Parts: sequence; C-alpha cells; structure tokens
Amino acid sequence: MAKEFVVGVDVGGQTTKIGVVNARGDVLSQTVIRSDVFGSDAAAYIQALAEAIKMNISQSGLAEEDIRGIGVGAPNGNYYTGEVAFAPNLAWAANAAVPFSKMLQEAVGLPVSLTNDANAAAVGEMAYGAARGMKNFIMITLGTGVGSGIVIDGKVLYGHDGFAGELGHVTILRDGRQCGCGRKGCLEAYCSAIGIARTAREWLSATDEPSLLRLCDQDKLSSKDIYDAAVKGDKIALKLFEYTGTLLGRAFADFIAFSAPEAIVLFGGLARAKEFLYEPMLKAMNESVLKIWKDKVNIVFSSLPLNDAAILGASALAWEL
Amino acid sequence: MAKEFVVGVDVGGQTTKIGVVNARGDVLSQTVIRSDVFGSDAAAYIQALAEAIKMNISQSGLAEEDIRGIGVGAPNGNYYTGEVAFAPNLAWAANAAVPFSKMLQEAVGLPVSLTNDANAAAVGEMAYGAARGMKNFIMITLGTGVGSGIVIDGKVLYGHDGFAGELGHVTILRDGRQCGCGRKGCLEAYCSAIGIARTAREWLSATDEPSLLRLCDQDKLSSKDIYDAAVKGDKIALKLFEYTGTLLGRAFADFIAFSAPEAIVLFGGLARAKEFLYEPMLKAMNESVLKIWKDKVNIVFSSLPLNDAAILGASALAWEL
Repeated sequence: MAKEFVVGVDVGGQTTKIGVVNARGDVLSQTVIRSDVFGSDAAAYIQALAEAIKMNISQSGLAEEDIRGIGVGAPNGNYYTGEVAFAPNLAWAANAAVPFSKMLQEAVGLPVSLTNDANAAAVGEMAYGAARGMKNFIMITLGTGVGSGIVIDGKVLYGHDGFAGELGHVTILRDGRQCGCGRKGCLEAYCSAIGIARTAREWLSATDEPSLLRLCDQDKLSSKDIYDAAVKGDKIALKLFEYTGTLLGRAFADFIAFSAPEAIVLFGGLARAKEFLYEPMLKAMNESVLKIWKDKVNIVFSSLPLNDAAILGASALAWEL
Repeated sequence: MAKEFVVGVDVGGQTTKIGVVNARGDVLSQTVIRSDVFGSDAAAYIQALAEAIKMNISQSGLAEEDIRGIGVGAPNGNYYTGEVAFAPNLAWAANAAVPFSKMLQEAVGLPVSLTNDANAAAVGEMAYGAARGMKNFIMITLGTGVGSGIVIDGKVLYGHDGFAGELGHVTILRDGRQCGCGRKGCLEAYCSAIGIARTAREWLSATDEPSLLRLCDQDKLSSKDIYDAAVKGDKIALKLFEYTGTLLGRAFADFIAFSAPEAIVLFGGLARAKEFLYEPMLKAMNESVLKIWKDKVNIVFSSLPLNDAAILGASALAWEL
C-alpha cells in the first residue's frame, strides 16, 4: 500500500505540536506536548514525543505502515547531521548537540527528516501554500526573530554545513542596534516583532507626539499593540510599519542580488500586518534593487492557515523521505 | 572516440580570447580577436569568432569531432537564454538581446554553453583551480568592477532568471557612493579597482599626509599605483588596502549568512594585492560573521595562471555539455 501520509512535528520552546498530514495538506489530527518539562534530559523528551506521535497516528485511524516519515522543524535543527545543537530556548539541547533524528527514528521506527523552523516553513509553502509551483524563492519568517529559508531550483539551500539561510543576521545598519546574536545592526534587530517594538519605544521617548501607544505599558509594548494602534489610524504606529517595511524592502533588494528569486514569501506574526507593511516594502525593494530586477520580483504572503502552518511545513519535509 | 577537449571563449570589451583546453586544464593553443570593430553588427562579430575558433581547433592539431563543446564567458551572458543582452561595453550587444549561443552554435557546428565572466571564473576554479573538490563556495572577482559566481552543491547558482550572483551590487553603505549601476553604496563602488582609486583620491584631498600617491596624476591614479606604493611601505597605500579589505570581509560575513560556503575564492586584478588584503579581510569577516561560522570559512585566492584564467573558466562550462 502506498504511504500517503506524513507526520509533522513543530518543536518550540514551550510546546511541541504534532500532526498527521495528507498529500493535500490537510491536518488529520493534532496533539500538543510540553517541550519545557524535561530539563536537560533529551532522551525523556524524545520518548514523550515518540509516544505522542504514535498516539496521533492511531487517532487518525492510521497505522505506522501508512506513514512515509516524520518531518521535524526545530530551532537550530540541522538537515545534514540530524542534530538539534545548542538551541538556547530548548533546555534539553541548550548545551549539547542532540542526535534528534536518530533518537526519534529509533523510538518511533519511522524515518525522520529535520531542519530549522524557517526552512520547514519554506518547504511547507512549496508543498501546500503560496509558493506552490515556485522553484526559486526566499522565505522570510517575521516572528520574535527573523528567519529565512532559501529555495533554489526547488530545493532548500543548506550550504556546506547545513546552516545556510540566516538572513535575519545580515547587517542592515553598520554599527547599528545590538542584536541578540552578538552582532550589531542585524535585520532581526529592526524587523522582528521585538525589533519594531524597540523602534516604537525609541520613537516614543524621543518625541512628545501623541499616540495611542503611550497608553500601553512601555516595557511590554508589543508588535500586536502597534498593529492595533495602526488599525485605529495612529500616526506613529503607521509610521513604524512604514519604516520597518522600508528596511525589509531594502534588505530584500540585496537578497535578490544573491539568488535572483521569483518571489519573497513572508510568514509569521509580524507578517499579519500585511496591509501596513506591503506597500513600503515593495516600494523600497524596487527602489533599491538592481535595474534588471526592478518590478520583477513578487512579495507574497503565506497562504497556510496560521495555526497549522508550522506542522504543515515540518510535515512537507517527510515527502522527500 | 571520446571528446576530450573543449574550447573556452572569454568575451571582453576590447578583445575576445579563444583557447582549446584539455581535461587537465592545459591551454593547447590561443587566439585573440578584436571585439570592438564590428559596431552593432552582432552577426559579423559571431562570424569572425566562429572562424577564429575553427582555426584554433585545427592549430591544436584537432578536428571538430574531438571537441565536446564551446564554453563562453561574456558580460551579461545568460546561461538559461543563451543571450548576451544589453551589455554596455559590447557595441554589438549594447542595445539588443543577442542570441549568442544559438548563433555561435550554428556558425561552428558545436554545442555552446554561455554565462557571465564571474560565473565562468567560478566553474574554472572548480574544474582546474583553487576550488577543486569544493561543492559550496563563492567566487568574488575583484577587477574594474566586482563580480561574483555562487556555487551550491557543485553547481553555479543561476536563479529564476539566470542573473543570480550580483554581489558587487549589494549595499555596504546606505546612501553611500554613487555606483555605475545607478544605486548607491554598492560593494563595487568601494572594493573594485576603480573603487579603491576613488577612496585614494578622497583621502589624498582630505589630508596633507605625505604619500607617494601624490606623485601620480590624480585623475589617472590606479589600483596598480596604490599597490606599488604599498610595496614601498607607503602608509596611505597600506591603509587603503586595510580599509578595502575590511569592507570586503564585512560583506563576506553577510554572504556567508546566505549560502554557508566553505570558502570565499578571490580572483581578478585587485586580488593580486593578496599580501595587503588578506589579513584585514579575514579579520573583518571573522569579527562580523555569525558565531556558528567564526573561523570556519576560508578565504582563498585563485590558483589559475592569470593570463589563462578567463579562457579556462569559460572552457570548463563546456564539460557539462
């Protein structure tokens, strides 16, 4: 019998989401387990994950013989080595290189393919979403951080060591803001959810201009607050998206000079502010890009349902197994 | 009989160089024709080129049956379309998209593979030079301009439209120097032979510091003059290389975040200033790169003989035919 189903696993700092997926990208059933209750005991976490996967498969009315394999998206997941290595937000992998794929494969008895979250998102968009039919595109995930997955000729670019596609950490401003990675002026320091909130706090403290954002607790000011204010027409909030979109568009122009993609595909919490980001982003990209690419590269937004997107992305990896 | 030879054609603004090459990368015989005496008549140029190629093959004691194919490196050469399109320095292709590969193939009767100069250089280094055995590297050509050829899993990255790898035109300084491409602050505007001479003129006019470079005609000051002065210990000349190397190293750090190569390979006139560029370049790259790549990516220099390198690079394309 053909193996017409795959399992997707999205490993996050607090929770791990598991889902069984068919070839059309329908999630047949989902489970969530905690990722943060195992301390540094990777084996215990993998054991719990394996059990949840098996349960999920039987809940979908399937047997392990029906499953092609398990695709996993995890922070610092390495496609080549199958390791999750030194991932600060995962206690069981914070100080070690955990042979994740090997351990999970042994525990479940199904083949495992692993990569990082942004690469998984790229594969998901290609299999089921906005990048269907595209062979060359760059996925940018705008979440707490900025991640990327680069697709060349229909395949994710992994590079010499499996870590290619860290576009959140290219310099957009020399000697600019300190980034969490230790560098300065990274794209992520400006254009992530945290980055735009940082810009907001800077601007609010630099002027007296009235803004709804002044009503928020400044220490907890989030990209969601800025979005809500922009929806209500708040000028500073709108300018924050214009500025952030412009920085993104300029960065995209440089990315295009690298791999000449047909599109930039956006995903993640901050990408939900599509109506405020799209135009400044597109304008800045076309103003900054080399002439041969002017008005030729599309910016598109993920078309996957937000709740399922991470599972779908991870699951799509398993079709290649 | 096996087709154990290829022809390499290096198309430049003034001259076109042609050579027959064996599998070891030996140039058996060479010819040069003028590129600039045909006005806008592409057909006449291709005819002259075809005759020179045929003559070259017979001068090497070979027949057309011995030749696998013809590899061509040309400004704006497009691998996918086989066209040389809107190349400002080639009168016969300045205002047109010339179907170069098709025309040459018909005129000679051998298959033709075409790409731009920097991509050809990358293929040449992989086949015969410093990148032998490498699957993932970035070739940077430091000549009048700055070009690049990106190799991923052993193949040149062409992208959606065949124009990928224009790393001379990423922004290294926002609103920086005007570049010939119409953008501002491009890598090429600072780190090409022309760019370093521009920096020199700026510095010389900004200070009174003594320098051998003040003896040169300022309008004609070249990267060669700067090199010669540096060899003599001239402080400004040495600082110019340190500055240029630093800018290059920082740019490399961003390129690494894209494709995670095992090495950056340098070629071209300015790369001959290896002894002055290497250390600041390596230092800046390792200071700027994301931690996972610190001290892991090599910077290597072309090992092809300078006079043959362009022919060898172009010829290497033909092995894939």
